[in-house]
Amino acid sequence: MQLGLSFSDSDVSSFTPLVVLELADDTKAEAITWLLNRIRDKQQNGGAELLVNQLLFPAQDDQKSNPNVFVVGSTLQRLLNGAEDVGLFKEFQDGTMRGFTYANRESFKDFNGDGEGFLSDAECQYIIKHGLDTLRAKNEQHVPGYPKLKLYPGKSVVRRLQSKGVLIQYFPLHNKEDLKRLSFSWYKKFKLSFQPLDDIRHYFGEGLALYFGFLEYFTFALVPMALIGIPYYLFDWEDYDKYVLFAVFNLVWSTVFLEVWKRCSATLAYGWGTLSRKKAFEEPRAGFHGALGFNPVTGREEPVYPSSKRQLRIYLVSVPFVLLCLYLSFYVMMVYFDMEFWAINTYHENPNIATSILLFVPSIIYAVVIEIMNLLYRCAAEFLTDWGEPEILLFNFVNCFASLFYIAFVMQNMVLLRQSLATLLITSQILNQVMEAFLPYWLQRRRNKKVHKRMRRLMGDKELPLLGQVQLETEMNTYLGTFDDYLEQFLLFGYVSLFSCVYPLAAVLVVLNNITEVYSDAFKMCHVFKRPFSEPAANIGVWQLAFETMSIIAVVTNCALIGLSPQVKAYFPESDTQLILIVVAIEHVLLAFKFILAFVIPDVPKHIQVKLAKLDFDSLEALKKRVSTHLHMCTYLLHENRKCDSLSGSTSVQIVI
Amino acid sequence: MQLGLSFSDSDVSSFTPLVVLELADDTKAEAITWLLNRIRDKQQNGGAELLVNQLLFPAQDDQKSNPNVFVVGSTLQRLLNGAEDVGLFKEFQDGTMRGFTYANRESFKDFNGDGEGFLSDAECQYIIKHGLDTLRAKNEQHVPGYPKLKLYPGKSVVRRLQSKGVLIQYFPLHNKEDLKRLSFSWYKKFKLSFQPLDDIRHYFGEGLALYFGFLEYFTFALVPMALIGIPYYLFDWEDYDKYVLFAVFNLVWSTVFLEVWKRCSATLAYGWGTLSRKKAFEEPRAGFHGALGFNPVTGREEPVYPSSKRQLRIYLVSVPFVLLCLYLSFYVMMVYFDMEFWAINTYHENPNIATSILLFVPSIIYAVVIEIMNLLYRCAAEFLTDWGEPEILLFNFVNCFASLFYIAFVMQNMVLLRQSLATLLITSQILNQVMEAFLPYWLQRRRNKKVHKRMRRLMGDKELPLLGQVQLETEMNTYLGTFDDYLEQFLLFGYVSLFSCVYPLAAVLVVLNNITEVYSDAFKMCHVFKRPFSEPAANIGVWQLAFETMSIIAVVTNCALIGLSPQVKAYFPESDTQLILIVVAIEHVLLAFKFILAFVIPDVPKHIQVKLAKLDFDSLEALKKRVSTHLHMCTYLLHENRKCDSLSGSTSVQIVI
Repeated sequence: MQLGLSFSDSDVSSFTPLVVLELADDTKAEAITWLLNRIRDKQQNGGAELLVNQLLFPAQDDQKSNPNVFVVGSTLQRLLNGAEDVGLFKEFQDGTMRGFTYANRESFKDFNGDGEGFLSDAECQYIIKHGLDTLRAKNEQHVPGYPKLKLYPGKSVVRRLQSKGVLIQYFPLHNKEDLKRLSFSWYKKFKLSFQPLDDIRHYFGEGLALYFGFLEYFTFALVPMALIGIPYYLFDWEDYDKYVLFAVFNLVWSTVFLEVWKRCSATLAYGWGTLSRKKAFEEPRAGFHGALGFNPVTGREEPVYPSSKRQLRIYLVSVPFVLLCLYLSFYVMMVYFDMEFWAINTYHENPNIATSILLFVPSIIYAVVIEIMNLLYRCAAEFLTDWGEPEILLFNFVNCFASLFYIAFVMQNMVLLRQSLATLLITSQILNQVMEAFLPYWLQRRRNKKVHKRMRRLMGDKELPLLGQVQLETEMNTYLGTFDDYLEQFLLFGYVSLFSCVYPLAAVLVVLNNITEVYSDAFKMCHVFKRPFSEPAANIGVWQLAFETMSIIAVVTNCALIGLSPQVKAYFPESDTQLILIVVAIEHVLLAFKFILAFVIPDVPKHIQVKLAKLDFDSLEALKKRVSTHLHMCTYLLHENRKCDSLSGSTSVQIVI
Repeated sequence: MQLGLSFSDSDVSSFTPLVVLELADDTKAEAITWLLNRIRDKQQNGGAELLVNQLLFPAQDDQKSNPNVFVVGSTLQRLLNGAEDVGLFKEFQDGTMRGFTYANRESFKDFNGDGEGFLSDAECQYIIKHGLDTLRAKNEQHVPGYPKLKLYPGKSVVRRLQSKGVLIQYFPLHNKEDLKRLSFSWYKKFKLSFQPLDDIRHYFGEGLALYFGFLEYFTFALVPMALIGIPYYLFDWEDYDKYVLFAVFNLVWSTVFLEVWKRCSATLAYGWGTLSRKKAFEEPRAGFHGALGFNPVTGREEPVYPSSKRQLRIYLVSVPFVLLCLYLSFYVMMVYFDMEFWAINTYHENPNIATSILLFVPSIIYAVVIEIMNLLYRCAAEFLTDWGEPEILLFNFVNCFASLFYIAFVMQNMVLLRQSLATLLITSQILNQVMEAFLPYWLQRRRNKKVHKRMRRLMGDKELPLLGQVQLETEMNTYLGTFDDYLEQFLLFGYVSLFSCVYPLAAVLVVLNNITEVYSDAFKMCHVFKRPFSEPAANIGVWQLAFETMSIIAVVTNCALIGLSPQVKAYFPESDTQLILIVVAIEHVLLAFKFILAFVIPDVPKHIQVKLAKLDFDSLEALKKRVSTHLHMCTYLLHENRKCDSLSGSTSVQIVI
C-alpha cells in the first residue's frame, strides 16, 4: 500500500525531513489519505501546509517493519510564516529581541537572502510540531475508516489519533552532522570548559539549554561549600562553633546564588528570545481537549479546558491519592527504623566486620526502596492526574527526607543522622546514574545492533542512511522532559542544605555527582533518547520557587540542629531557655537577611530591564500609531497625489513611521 | 507694568484658567516677556503652546498685591495632544483601557464631538503641568535680565526659576462648581456611605483617590478586630488563651486584608488607566536636574541624573544623619523612662487623684515629644536628602515603637506596656487631627477673612470671582503629598497589630480615629490646602511593602508576648524550654501560613489579568503588523489601482487592519 508520492533515499532531495510520524501498521488506507491531505492542505483551508511523504522500505523485507512511517518537512516560506505564528523572538538589527514577522524579516539580524539558516533546526521542528498539533477537525464527524473515532469542529486531529493509538508517535529527527559537532564540543573533549549552551539551545531548544545551564551553575555554586566542607571531613572537626560558621555560610551562600541565578537565566532567556515571549499567546498544546471557546486574550478560537472539572478531580482523586502514598512512605520509614535498630543491636552483640557492614545494609535497602517508591509514585501520578507536578515534588521531598527529619529531631541521634544521610545520598546518586543513563544506553546498544544487522541483511551494501536513521530513532526511548532531572538536583540540594552542618561532605559528593551528571545527561540526550521537541522556556519555572523554599527550610533545620548539638548546649549549662532564645534570634536574623537580600537583588539585570521596557514602549507606541500612520499615509498620498506604487516597499515605511 | 493681552474677569471668556503661576513681584520685565513667550510658543519651537495671561487688579489697589500673577489655560486640541504625550490611558470602545491617541480619538468611549469634557479637570491640569515642567532652555545662556540665572540646553526653565525664587509657585485652580458637588457627596451628607472615589479621582487625580480608597478599606478591615476587641475591654478578660485566639485572628486577618487590598487597588488603578501606564515612559519631573542624555527606553533626549552622585550622598549624608537621629530618639526614650519611674514612685509614696493623674503625664509628654521629633526629622530629611522616604519611615517607626518594644521585651512589664501604648496611641491621634486639619483650617479662616475684607474694600459691590479666588488660593498652604497621611495610617497599623494581644482596644480607637480622619482629610483637601496637581498612581507603592513587613513583625512580637505572659507560662510550670519551643513552632506555622496565603492569592484579579494580557498581545501584534500593513495597503492600492483619496479615513483602516 502506497500513498502520495513515494519517498526513499533515492529522492531525498525533494525536501529535508525534519519530523517522523509513525502510524499503526494496520491503519486504514482512507484514514491515512485523509490525514496526509489535511497535513498537506493550505492553511486557509485549515490544513498544516506541510510536506509529508511515506518512507518506503525495499521490497525484500522479510521481517515486516511498519510501513506507515512518514517524514514531515516544510518549505522555507511556511517555516518563516510559522515562526511568526508561534511568536518566535529573534534578534533585531538594533540588537534587541523582537517578535519575528515575515513582513519585516529583512530588519532582523542574520536574515540573509531567502532566510536559509535563519531558523535553527529546533525552531523548525517546533514550528512543524505546532503545525501538526493545531491541525483541527473541520466538519468531519469521525476519522475516515474509523466510525468510532469521533471528531468535532476544533478537535485536535493529532491528539485524537494519538489517544486511540492510531498515531503511535511523532518526533523530530536528529541531524547527524550537527549532533556530531554538538556532542564533540559538549562532552567528547575532556578539557574542563563551560558547556556550549547556545549550541545546546540551537539543537534541543531553550527548555533543555536552561536545564543544563542551571546544572552547570548549580555545580559551580556548590564548589565553595565543597571546598570548605573538605577539612571538616579530613580533620573530623567536631567543635560546633566551626559547624555554626559552616552552616551560616551555607545559608547566606544558598540565598545569594539562587538570587543570582534568576539574573543569569533572565539574561540567557533574553538572548534566546523567550523572556519577552508571552505564554498566554501560544496555542493550547494538543493535549488540551474540551469544547471550542474563545481565548479572551488572543481572541482566537481554541478549545478551552473546563477548570471546574479539574478542580473536582484534584480534590477527589489526587489529594486522597497523595495522602495514601504519604502514609505508605511513613510506614516504610518505620520498617527501616526497625531494621536499623536490629542491625545496631546485632552489631553490639558481636562486633565484627560482617556486622559492621551489616550496619549500612538497612539504609542502603531503604534508599533503594525510596527510589522505587518515587518511581512508582511518578508513574501512578502521571497516570491518575496527568502531571500533578507539585504533588510529585511534595511526595518525593517527604519520601526522601522524612526519615532524616525523624532521626534529627525526634531521635536527636546525630551519628545515625550523618550515617543515614551519607548512605541515602550516595546510594541515590549511584542508582540515578544507572537508571538514567547506563541502563537505557545498554538497552539502546542492543537495539542498535539488532537494527543494524537487519538493515545490512535487508539491503546488503547499498547505503540508505535516512531509512536506517529513522529505523533506529523510532526504536529509541522518549525523553519525558526536564522534570526528573530538575527533581534530582532539587533533592540533592536538599541533602546538601538541610543538614549541612551535620555532614559537610555532602556538598563534595554532590559536586562530584554533578560533574559526571553533566556528561551522562549530555550523552543520554545525544545518543540514548529520541530527540525531544524544543520547548520555549523563559526560566526554570516552579523550580526557582522550590529551591528557594528549600533554602528557607534549611535555615530552620540548621538552626535547630545547632541548637540541639551537645557542644552548643555545653555553653549554656544553667538553662536551655537562654540557648533556645539565642538560636531563635539568630534564625530570625538569618531569615530576615534572606528576604532583604532577595528583595535588594533585582531579578533582571539593568541592561535587560531597559531592553524589555524599550520593547514595551515601542509596542505601545506602535499600537497608538497604527491608525495614525494610515491617516498620515493617506494625507501624504493625497498631498503628493500620486499612485502608491511609487512608494511601495520600505521607502514608504521610512516616510510614514 | 503689563504684558501680553491683559486679563481680568471682564474677558474671562477668552479661556478657562486652569493653573495659576505666581512670579516674584520684583521680577524683571524682560524675564516675564521671555517666559510668557516661551509658554505661548509652538511646541515644535520648544514652547509649551499654552495660553497664559496676566491677572490684572483694579487700579485703586492701595495694599499693593503682587501684580505678577498669571493664569494658564490651553486649547482643547493642545490638551488632547498633551494627553497622548503624557501617555494617558482611557476607556476604549471595547471596554479595555488603552493609551489615548489623538489619531484614533473617535474610538474611545465618551469621546463626543470635539472631545469637550473627555478629559477631567485633574487630567487637564496635569497635562498643563507637564507642559510647563518640560519647558526646557534652548540656547539661552541665562534667564533674560538675570545674568546670574545660568541656563543650558535642556535645563528645565520652571525648575531654574523656582530654585532661584523668581517663580514663587504654580498650582491648579479649584473648580468651585465641581468642588461644591464633590465636597457634598464626599463628607457633607452624614449618612453612612462609601466615598465617591471616582469623583475624587476625577477632581484630585489617582494618587489621592487611592489614598482615600486605602483609608476606607483599612478602616473597614479593622472593624472586625475592633468588634472582637470590645468584649476583652468590657469584661476585662485577662485569661490569655482568649488573647492567643485574638492574636492569631489578627495575624491571619491582617495578612488576608493586605493581600485582598492589592486586588482592590489593581482593579481601581485599571479602571483609572494607571495600571498599564508605564512609569518609565514619563518625562523626568522638573525637579530632575543634570546634563542632557538619552533615555534608553524612550530614546527621548532628557536630563539624566548621575546616580553615582546620589549613592555617594546617601552614604555620606543620610546614613550618619539617620544614625544621629536614632541616637537622639533613644536618648529621649531613656529620659521618658526616668520620668515614668519617678511618677510611679511618687504615686506609690502617696496614692491620690493628683498622683494617679501624674502617672499618665510622662507618656503624654513623651507622645508629644515623639510627634515633634517626627516632624523635625521630616523637615530635616526633606532639606538634607530630598525625600529620603524610606529613612523617614524607618525613623518614625523606631521613634514611635522603640519604647514599647523596650517595655515589652526588656522590662517585660505588661501593665506599663498597655498603659503607655494607650496613651501614645490616643495622644498621637489627637495631635494628628489638630496638626493636620484644625490648625491649618483656623489659620485659613483668618486669611480668608482678611482677603474677603480686602476684596470688598477693593472693588466694593462689583463681583470679581476669579480675582478673589486666585487671591484666596495663592495664600493657602500647599499639600505636600500623601506620604504623611500614609505614614500616619502605617503607625496606627503598628499600634494595632504589634501588641494587639496586650491591648485589644487599640483597633477600636483606630477605627474611631479613621472615621473622623476620612472627614478631616476630605475637608482639608477641599478647603484648607491648595488644590494639588494630580499624580498618576497604579498602587500605594512602598506602603504595600511597609504594611506587609509590619504584619510580619507583628507575628513575631505577638508570639513573643504570648510566650512571656504569666498565664501561658503557668501551663508549663516545669520547664520554659517546652513553652518556648511550642511558641516558636506556632510562630513558624503562622509565618509559613502567611507566605502561602500571599502566594496563593493572585495580586491582580483574573478578569484584569486577561485585559492586561490582551493589551500586551494587541500591542505586540501591532508592532508586528506595522510594516506589513503598509505593504498590504500599498499592494491593495496597486491592485485596486486608484488614488488614495478614495479610501482616506476610517474605511481604509477597516480594510487593512
